[in-house]
Amino acid sequence: MKNFKYYAPTYVAFGRDTEKKVGELVRRFGGTKVLLHYGGQSAVKSGLLGKVEQYLQEAGIEYVKLGGVVPNPRVSKVREGIEICKREGIDFLLAVGGGSVIDSCKAISSGRYLDCDVWDLYTRKAVATQYMPIGCVLTIPAAGSEMSDGSVITNEDGGLKKDYCVDEFRCKFAIMNPELTYTLPAWQTACGAVDIMMHTMERYFSKDDDMEITNAVAETVLRTVKEQVRLVLDNPTDYNSRAQIMWAGSLAHNDLTGCGTTGDWATHCLEHELSGMFDVSHGAGLAAMWGSWARYTCSENITRFARFAVNVMGVTNDFKSAEKTAEAGIRAMEQFYHSIGMPTSIKELIGRDITEAEIAEMADKCSNYGKSTVGALKVLTRNDMAEIYRMAKG
Amino acid sequence: MKNFKYYAPTYVAFGRDTEKKVGELVRRFGGTKVLLHYGGQSAVKSGLLGKVEQYLQEAGIEYVKLGGVVPNPRVSKVREGIEICKREGIDFLLAVGGGSVIDSCKAISSGRYLDCDVWDLYTRKAVATQYMPIGCVLTIPAAGSEMSDGSVITNEDGGLKKDYCVDEFRCKFAIMNPELTYTLPAWQTACGAVDIMMHTMERYFSKDDDMEITNAVAETVLRTVKEQVRLVLDNPTDYNSRAQIMWAGSLAHNDLTGCGTTGDWATHCLEHELSGMFDVSHGAGLAAMWGSWARYTCSENITRFARFAVNVMGVTNDFKSAEKTAEAGIRAMEQFYHSIGMPTSIKELIGRDITEAEIAEMADKCSNYGKSTVGALKVLTRNDMAEIYRMAKG
Repeated sequence: MKNFKYYAPTYVAFGRDTEKKVGELVRRFGGTKVLLHYGGQSAVKSGLLGKVEQYLQEAGIEYVKLGGVVPNPRVSKVREGIEICKREGIDFLLAVGGGSVIDSCKAISSGRYLDCDVWDLYTRKAVATQYMPIGCVLTIPAAGSEMSDGSVITNEDGGLKKDYCVDEFRCKFAIMNPELTYTLPAWQTACGAVDIMMHTMERYFSKDDDMEITNAVAETVLRTVKEQVRLVLDNPTDYNSRAQIMWAGSLAHNDLTGCGTTGDWATHCLEHELSGMFDVSHGAGLAAMWGSWARYTCSENITRFARFAVNVMGVTNDFKSAEKTAEAGIRAMEQFYHSIGMPTSIKELIGRDITEAEIAEMADKCSNYGKSTVGALKVLTRNDMAEIYRMAKG
Repeated sequence: MKNFKYYAPTYVAFGRDTEKKVGELVRRFGGTKVLLHYGGQSAVKSGLLGKVEQYLQEAGIEYVKLGGVVPNPRVSKVREGIEICKREGIDFLLAVGGGSVIDSCKAISSGRYLDCDVWDLYTRKAVATQYMPIGCVLTIPAAGSEMSDGSVITNEDGGLKKDYCVDEFRCKFAIMNPELTYTLPAWQTACGAVDIMMHTMERYFSKDDDMEITNAVAETVLRTVKEQVRLVLDNPTDYNSRAQIMWAGSLAHNDLTGCGTTGDWATHCLEHELSGMFDVSHGAGLAAMWGSWARYTCSENITRFARFAVNVMGVTNDFKSAEKTAEAGIRAMEQFYHSIGMPTSIKELIGRDITEAEIAEMADKCSNYGKSTVGALKVLTRNDMAEIYRMAKG
């Protein structure tokens, strides 16, 4: 069994009206003056932002607002945040939104005390030694950033998308009220569910067969999301189902589902290029790629795929053939994706056939022009990547 | 669904040789001079204590040793620890052992900065406002104290056993090397498994039916321990099985298995009096009491007990009768307890019939002489308690 580290220090306040605790929690974790960071107009229109401002005021906490974070959050906005923090003497970052806003806060946190530009961290040219504390009021369950150690930022100058991961990026607190997710459209809800499941599956499809409790917890998270997302799509204000998905989103990405196993993450890497080229939703891109990745790699640990089929997808075990059971499981997953409106091929995703030139470009970029590999269950070279894109063509 | 808080800030270093990180982890969490707290001779004889001393020395960390913690840790030892901390300028507490040593460290942590005696905290006469940081090298998986917020201390003056729970009691780090548990005798291994399962079951047997993901995670923990403890009893140096149990012990008591549900804890309260009167092992006492508690209360949520029977114990569902399925599940659990050498009645536990006078005394004490109740699934009065003890007589 692989040694592991588990570190999930985020204080989670989960349930109805928990946003009212925001002032108390900022104070508990040392904040006196806050950068209130958010995205577009939805937080304003829903009234959430106004409420958060009110609760901060009631707690006697000063704040400065900075909105305008976009999906695939930009380094320019991060730089703006850093400047405000320096100028205004901000000592705490509060994200109101989903993964993009939290990731932008994380970047501001790491850049605040740097002598160089924050992008140098993301390109591994610099290392931060001091960070600002972060809290969040989560409105979109998907990215899992509220408990994770990672941040992904896009540099619009060159269209580069890079990640940076440190324990200091783990939020001090996360406020999660499932009611705040009622207004998420069906498409975004489904994309979020795919992302949550994939965070679990990237860890679950491993060659490590000896960490039974982790595998079983991962299956539990997968089954829960699979069942509850259908209930939510039928009834968007089903509190209990929204709650299961929201909590699953955190458990899927706070490392609980990977304790003692080696993550694969190839599907994420392959999708990264897809959404970079076609500006599609991350969750939808993952759904489009997964089946092809699974078929290409499943022989590396066929019993894990058979187990997934039976324990997660409810497929009847073919005791004579793990291969057949595994294939039935992959097919069942694709049927599930379709049932929640998700694509299972690139054609379904982008509405046309992808060209060989586009496949070559994505495989080049994903492999750093043949210089690097992705994946762990099966280590994928540039040609493997191209072949998987081809299989996913549709 | 019930709102909940989840806060598990402990940094877990899990696996082979992780005790080598002890110096680095003490330093990471701010320690410069350590109270090295441990129990009897086993930590010395096994060589673990010597190794920990070596690693601290190599990291340039000073330490003072204080051994002699006993099961049901005593307040006198805690007071000794507090005096040493004050005298020697100790700034970090390191427990090497199981729940008793960790609980003793927690008490020292809370008493260090108090103006009054530490026992006043446990009797709710005082409140602490400052705590010392704690880390641990775990050698006995059972109590779950390495990630929990609780500490139970016994005052030998009057034989009182009291608990105190605060977030500051959560360890900064926990080092868990399953190899360190190889030498645990079969009886103690089985008692630990019962304790781990009961920490989960106290949370699982609830009237709250709407937190599916928590219930499913709890079932996973229960199934894992049930299966793995048999493997360990067959082969005490089975690394992977020891690892599953060790990690399950933390997950069972870091609140993960209770997110959004109301814990019951009546079996723990009933057992508390039993081990107080007869000086039996906590885990064995829990096994002796649980079946009777379950039969007395199961009608309060019969479907939960039926679900437990099918999902945890592998009983065939009787679709016509949840009652029959539930009873089969309770019986299967008792058979499991017997299979690992645990008692399922008080007679099996203490080797003789318990008297009506003893039952009355325990029910009196457990109910604070009729003034208080225990339990949540079914709220138990003094007479309920006496009846459950009577059912458990054997």
